[in-house]
Amino acid sequence: MSEADEQERAPEKETGRLEAFSDGVMAVIITLMAIDLKAPTGGGFSDLGRTVPGLLVYVLSFGFVGIYWNNHHHLLRATVHISGAVMWFNLHLLLWLSLIPLVTAWMAAHWRDHAPTASYAVVALGSAVAFTLLQKAIIRADGPASRIAEALGSNRKGQVSLVVYVAAIGLALVNPVISDVAFVAVALLWFVPDRRLDAWR
Amino acid sequence: MSEADEQERAPEKETGRLEAFSDGVMAVIITLMAIDLKAPTGGGFSDLGRTVPGLLVYVLSFGFVGIYWNNHHHLLRATVHISGAVMWFNLHLLLWLSLIPLVTAWMAAHWRDHAPTASYAVVALGSAVAFTLLQKAIIRADGPASRIAEALGSNRKGQVSLVVYVAAIGLALVNPVISDVAFVAVALLWFVPDRRLDAWR
Amino acid sequence: MSEADEQERAPEKETGRLEAFSDGVMAVIITLMAIDLKAPTGGGFSDLGRTVPGLLVYVLSFGFVGIYWNNHHHLLRATVHISGAVMWFNLHLLLWLSLIPLVTAWMAAHWRDHAPTASYAVVALGSAVAFTLLQKAIIRADGPASRIAEALGSNRKGQVSLVVYVAAIGLALVNPVISDVAFVAVALLWFVPDRRLDAWR
Amino acid sequence: MSEADEQERAPEKETGRLEAFSDGVMAVIITLMAIDLKAPTGGGFSDLGRTVPGLLVYVLSFGFVGIYWNNHHHLLRATVHISGAVMWFNLHLLLWLSLIPLVTAWMAAHWRDHAPTASYAVVALGSAVAFTLLQKAIIRADGPASRIAEALGSNRKGQVSLVVYVAAIGLALVNPVISDVAFVAVALLWFVPDRRLDAWR
Repeated sequence: MSEADEQERAPEKETGRLEAFSDGVMAVIITLMAIDLKAPTGGGFSDLGRTVPGLLVYVLSFGFVGIYWNNHHHLLRATVHISGAVMWFNLHLLLWLSLIPLVTAWMAAHWRDHAPTASYAVVALGSAVAFTLLQKAIIRADGPASRIAEALGSNRKGQVSLVVYVAAIGLALVNPVISDVAFVAVALLWFVPDRRLDAWR
Repeated sequence: MSEADEQERAPEKETGRLEAFSDGVMAVIITLMAIDLKAPTGGGFSDLGRTVPGLLVYVLSFGFVGIYWNNHHHLLRATVHISGAVMWFNLHLLLWLSLIPLVTAWMAAHWRDHAPTASYAVVALGSAVAFTLLQKAIIRADGPASRIAEALGSNRKGQVSLVVYVAAIGLALVNPVISDVAFVAVALLWFVPDRRLDAWR
Repeated sequence: MSEADEQERAPEKETGRLEAFSDGVMAVIITLMAIDLKAPTGGGFSDLGRTVPGLLVYVLSFGFVGIYWNNHHHLLRATVHISGAVMWFNLHLLLWLSLIPLVTAWMAAHWRDHAPTASYAVVALGSAVAFTLLQKAIIRADGPASRIAEALGSNRKGQVSLVVYVAAIGLALVNPVISDVAFVAVALLWFVPDRRLDAWR
Repeated sequence: MSEADEQERAPEKETGRLEAFSDGVMAVIITLMAIDLKAPTGGGFSDLGRTVPGLLVYVLSFGFVGIYWNNHHHLLRATVHISGAVMWFNLHLLLWLSLIPLVTAWMAAHWRDHAPTASYAVVALGSAVAFTLLQKAIIRADGPASRIAEALGSNRKGQVSLVVYVAAIGLALVNPVISDVAFVAVALLWFVPDRRLDAWR
């Protein structure tokens, strides 16, 4: 293979494998949660009824991870260079996301209790902080004049999410249902299309 | 990296990562179901016999997810643009498909009961509706004059599947075996090669 | 995006997504088996000793799936066109491979019994037949004058494997250990580098 | 498709699928470990407390696999040719890594015992040896004058890791906590950015 071939190959590879690995991890996380949705032990409709809280928590977490996948996708589309720091901050984000199935299973089984909902909020906060750090690492790697730095100039949704998750940790100690509403509200916020990001496509 | 390089890279990436993530999720779903096929507790041939209903339901669900992967593959091969809506409708489809292992495990354990089979039909219907919505979102993104809009002009198989799944929900309340036959019939319908789609290849 | 862009994209995509999905499924299969290797219940070295048969069966199955991944990789490197039939025969192969964790877990727990080892041989035979069918479908899609048809002209290793697996089904009813030796022998056969395939690289 | 098209496709594919499969396996390994983090049975904060040792071992193993993914990524970026031997040595590495969830689960449950920690050290050592063998196979395939042979000329971190893991096997028999400290120390060593590898990016 000539030097020229390698040069040609380079652009494709810079973010490619980071995306592939992250996709793999997020795909496994999102489907692993479905494993914790144990099939009802009986065969009647009433047995199905008892799985409803678990199903709702699952849908929330599926949306949560789906939003991260979506944001991660857009973030890396605009990314040009991958530094060592970007690699580690990306793994750090995946570490937080990988705890989602654990807190999902716990909250599904004990949704009326304080500790599982507070833990869910902690993992959500950790993920949001990790995503913010990843963004900063990418801006540092690509430079302040890059397309990504410009596009992310104001990151209001991310900041609102951080504040709500911090509040949700405390609110879970008062009433877990308030925190649940907060989680759903943040998810809905992200579902609304984001002009800033869509402009890149 | 020059502007030109990035331009060159763009075509490859537009649908690439959506496909990669969907492949990952579907690959995990299809193999996770095999986990619920617990190895027999004893070591004799009679123990093997008891796993037969579970194995049959597994093969049905494997075919079901396989058909979706196949259709998804063809759909996205003909897709040019990915909008925000396409991303969300794709996640919506994956959410329904991720419930297949749950209803598979339930039906495998209680295949004579009404509720598990009716639930299976509901998830099958949800998946079919989600796929239809994804198609519409893609047509909206690519425009009515696009290759995909033309090719999908008449989508008879999809419509037949929707009707059969609705019927299977009701029939499961009469006799689950009738619904099982309906599931297999829909699967066979999709195995028959589809000229319309093959023409794209 | 212009017509030319799409044309350019085509070569990359023809086998790409089939490979990606198959890789995903095989990656999950190979690592799911490790889940069935439950951590010992006690914390002593004697507890470790009891996991040895399970570990050995795991290593065998890991090698088995690894060989299929390797052969699949080489087969698709030489493949140019993907027909609908190739898609289905590929799924059929993945279905057989997805049963490997099940028979692995069963054989690990009951390696002295006839039924688990015979079942393992049946799944091994099914996988080998499925791979042969996939090869034939690819040759049919690429044409008899294609590079792949030529290269696969004589497929002695595949034929030997089929014969040994058929024999292993029967031998398992006599003494499971004979079949185990046969499984290891077939695996070793494939580890020896294959000039015919290496020539493509 | 013309001969020219195939030629063009070749550079992209040489290491591509090996990376994709390895990514898949490592992504599943890293997230499977989170499954063994069972949600607490009760719903209180004290129940959370009991999961702390498990969480810490999980974070260690996540970092361990993350480091291998990172190193694997850099190694294959600099790789040009894939020989049959490279394929097998890569699978050999994945086999060792796939045992990490097993020893993680065991160590999480019995972190005060000798056997689980010693086993963890054995798997860590096996992985490190497998990575070294993979490097050598790649250098053999690419030739002694290749970019990779030059870059890996001195591989001090790898050698230090090997020595520490050997020591950790013995130290686990004295006091498992000493080995735990050694595992963390090796992980930190790898987190420090490596000029030699960064120069390739």
